[in-house]
Amino acid sequence: MTSAEPFPPPRLGEPYLLTPGPLTTAEEVKQAMLRDWGSWDDDFRAMTRDMRDRLLAMLGPGNADYDCVPIQGSGSFAVEAMLGSFVPRDGKVLVLANGAYGQRAATTLDYLGRDKVVLDKGDYLPPRGDEVARILADDPAISHVLAIHCETSSGILNPIEEIAAATRGAGRKLLIDSMSAFGALPLNPAELECAAFVSSANKCIEGVPGFGFVIARTSELEAAQGRAHSLSLDVHAQWAHMERTGQWRFTPPTHVVAAFVTALRLHEAEGGVAARGARYVRNRDVLVSGMRAQGFETLLNSHWLSPIIVTFFCPADPAFEFGRFYELMKDKGFIIYPGKLTVVDSFRLGCIGRMDEHVMRQVVEAAGDALAEMGVASAAPPAKALEERKKLAA
Amino acid sequence: MTSAEPFPPPRLGEPYLLTPGPLTTAEEVKQAMLRDWGSWDDDFRAMTRDMRDRLLAMLGPGNADYDCVPIQGSGSFAVEAMLGSFVPRDGKVLVLANGAYGQRAATTLDYLGRDKVVLDKGDYLPPRGDEVARILADDPAISHVLAIHCETSSGILNPIEEIAAATRGAGRKLLIDSMSAFGALPLNPAELECAAFVSSANKCIEGVPGFGFVIARTSELEAAQGRAHSLSLDVHAQWAHMERTGQWRFTPPTHVVAAFVTALRLHEAEGGVAARGARYVRNRDVLVSGMRAQGFETLLNSHWLSPIIVTFFCPADPAFEFGRFYELMKDKGFIIYPGKLTVVDSFRLGCIGRMDEHVMRQVVEAAGDALAEMGVASAAPPAKALEERKKLAA
Ligand SMILES: Cc1ncc(COP(=O)(O)O)c(C=O)c1O
Ligand SMILES: Cc1ncc(COP(=O)(O)O)c(C=O)c1O
Repeated sequence: MTSAEPFPPPRLGEPYLLTPGPLTTAEEVKQAMLRDWGSWDDDFRAMTRDMRDRLLAMLGPGNADYDCVPIQGSGSFAVEAMLGSFVPRDGKVLVLANGAYGQRAATTLDYLGRDKVVLDKGDYLPPRGDEVARILADDPAISHVLAIHCETSSGILNPIEEIAAATRGAGRKLLIDSMSAFGALPLNPAELECAAFVSSANKCIEGVPGFGFVIARTSELEAAQGRAHSLSLDVHAQWAHMERTGQWRFTPPTHVVAAFVTALRLHEAEGGVAARGARYVRNRDVLVSGMRAQGFETLLNSHWLSPIIVTFFCPADPAFEFGRFYELMKDKGFIIYPGKLTVVDSFRLGCIGRMDEHVMRQVVEAAGDALAEMGVASAAPPAKALEERKKLAA
Repeated sequence: MTSAEPFPPPRLGEPYLLTPGPLTTAEEVKQAMLRDWGSWDDDFRAMTRDMRDRLLAMLGPGNADYDCVPIQGSGSFAVEAMLGSFVPRDGKVLVLANGAYGQRAATTLDYLGRDKVVLDKGDYLPPRGDEVARILADDPAISHVLAIHCETSSGILNPIEEIAAATRGAGRKLLIDSMSAFGALPLNPAELECAAFVSSANKCIEGVPGFGFVIARTSELEAAQGRAHSLSLDVHAQWAHMERTGQWRFTPPTHVVAAFVTALRLHEAEGGVAARGARYVRNRDVLVSGMRAQGFETLLNSHWLSPIIVTFFCPADPAFEFGRFYELMKDKGFIIYPGKLTVVDSFRLGCIGRMDEHVMRQVVEAAGDALAEMGVASAAPPAKALEERKKLAA
C-alpha cells in the first residue's frame, strides 16, 4: 500500500525532523501562526472550544463522560498536572517504568510527596498484565496505576489493554501517559476504564510544541478540586474556569493553539486516528525493512515495535561514530535522535510528523550513504546488543 | 516627538490588540515561526544561548552575577517557579498587592504552603516604601518581599525603587514580577539588590506567548537546589540542565522561542529598553490626551500612569454599554480589554505591542465614533468614579 501523493517537502534548506516531537509539521500548520489573537476575544474562545471538541471526538463512542483540559507548558507539565490533580495526597501510585518517561513520572511523584512503588523493567522490557495484577493484589494501598502508552525512549508500545484489565480487575484507577501515541493509536478511555490520560500538541496530532492536554472523566475532574500542589498545574481550576468563561485561566499560547486547530483539521481530513496510525505504520515498515536490508538491527523485535519511533543499535564497526553520523544525516536533510539505552549504544528514528514512506526511503538511502562516507563496512551491532535483545524473547 | 515611519499594519482584516499580551507583534516575529526546529539540535541550542545572552544584556552594567532561566508555560508559571524555587519552605513572604497579579501571587503561596502576609492596597493604591519598612520592622520572620512592577490590572507603575530601598534597608530579599514592564522600563537587578525577577515572552519584548523567564542571582539559583514543589517549575533543575547541556529540560516551544529571538533583535534595533519605553510613553500620551479630549477620564492621575496599559472609567451615560463598545471597537479594528476594578466600571487600553502613535490616534478616533454610534452624549464617568480617584491624591 502506498500513499497517493507525497507531501510537499519542508522549505528549502530545512531538514526533516526524525524526532518524536518537535516534529516536521505541515506548512498550513505553521501558516496558522501568522496572526495575533486576543485571548479574551470571542474568536479565540471559539477556537479553544473547537479544539476541545475535536480532541474529545477522537476518543470514539461511549466517552461522553470525559472532558478535555489543555495545560500550558510541555508534556511533562501535563503529566505532573495529572498526577497532582487526580492522585489524592494519601494515594499511592504504581508506576510502570520501562524507560525515561516512566522514571520521570516517578520523580514527579517524589516532588509531589505522593507515595509510590515503581515496577522498573529497565531500558525497554514491557510491564505485563500478570505482573501488575500480582503487585496490586499484594499491596492494597495502591490507589492508582500509571502506564506509559508508547515509551518513547525505546519506542516500545506497551501492552495497555493487559495493564488496563489488571488495574480494572483489582479495582484501582488507571492513569496513562499517551504523549507520543494519542492521535495515531486507538485509545478509548471508557473501554479501558481509564481515569485520565495526557498527551500534547506536538506529537501524533502534528502541531507545534507549547501545551499539553488532560482528558479525564468528569467525575475525576470534579473530585480534583483543592487537591493540586500547584496553582499553574491545577487541572480542576483550569477546567472550572474554562467551563465558566470559555477562556484559559492564564495567557494561552495563542499561536500554538491556532496551529494545533489546523493540525486537528488535517488529522480529520487524513481520516482520523486510523489513517494517521496507518501512515505511521507504513513509515515504520519502510524504514525498518530498509534499515535492516542495510544491516542495521532494531532493539525490539517486530512484535513490540511501535509506529512512533524505532531504536536502532549503533554499528559495532569502529569507523562508526554517532556524532559524525548525526552531522552527515543532517547534511542530507535529516535530524536524527540519539538513543537512551544504558547498556549499548543506539540511535532513534521517528516515524511521526508530516512525512510519508517516500521520505522514509530517502532516510534509508541517506543512512546507507552516511555509512559509506564514514567507511563503515558493516552496520551490524556488537554481540552484546543481540544478547540484550534475547531478553525480550524470554 | 514623532516616530519616523509608521509600522506596517497587521494583515488585512486582523485587528490591533490593545491588550497587554498577547499583543500585536511584528510580521517578522510571526514569520520566524514558519520553520520546525529539532530541540536537541545544535542550531536550536545556539538559539537558546543567544536568547539568554540578549536578555541578560538588557539588564545594564553590573549584572554579571545574574543568569537567565526560561520556563515553559505562561507568565504565572514563571511567577510560581520563582516563588517555589527561591523562597525556602520555612520562609515568609510579604506580598505587596494592589490588583489581580499581587492577589494571584498570594494564592500561589497558599498552594505552595509558604507563609505569607499581604499588604492589600485594594484595586490600585500603590504600596509605599515607608509602609513596607514598617511591616518589615514589625515582623522579623518575613524573609522575602514580592513586588509587582507594573500591576497590569489597573496599569499602575508601582514605586519599585522605594520598595527596593525599604527591603534592602531591612536586610530582606526582593522578588519582582516584572511581567508587563521588563523590556520597556529600566530594571537593574544589581542596583535594586533584587534576588530574582520574572517576565515573559509576550509583553514588552513583543514576542508571542508560550514561555516566561526568571532572571536571578547565581547564588540564589545555586541555593534553590532541592527546594521546588514541582518538577516542571523547578528553576534550579532547569538552570543546571541548561548549563550542562545547552538544552531545555523538557520540550521547549521551539517556534515561540524562534519568534522571541526575532523580537529581541527588533528590540535591540529599535534602541533597546530606552527606545522601547519611549515609544510606549508616546503611545500612552497620545492615547490619554486624545481620550481625555473626548471626555474620558483615567483611573489614575498622570503621576501613576504606566506606559503599559491605561484604565479608563466607563461613561456614566446610560446609552453606554461595554459589550456594545467592545464590538464596535472590534469592527473598527481594535480589540480592547475589559476593566478589573471592583468599585466602578472600567475598560483598559494597552500601549504595548507593534504600534505607534499613528495607531493610537486611530484608536482615539474609533472610540469617539463608537460613542456617537451608541448615542452616548458624554464620556464623563459617574461621580463615584471621580471620588474613587481622590483616594489616590490623599
Ligand atoms: C511518553 C512521553 N511522556 C512524556 C514526555 C515529555 O514531554 P515533554 O518533553 O513535552 O515535556 C514525552 C516526550 O517526548 C514522551 O514521549
Ligand atoms: C504583572 C503580571 N503578572 C503576571 C501575569 C500573568 O501572566 P500570564 O497571563 O502569562 O500567566 C500578568 C499577565 O498579564 C501580568 O501582567
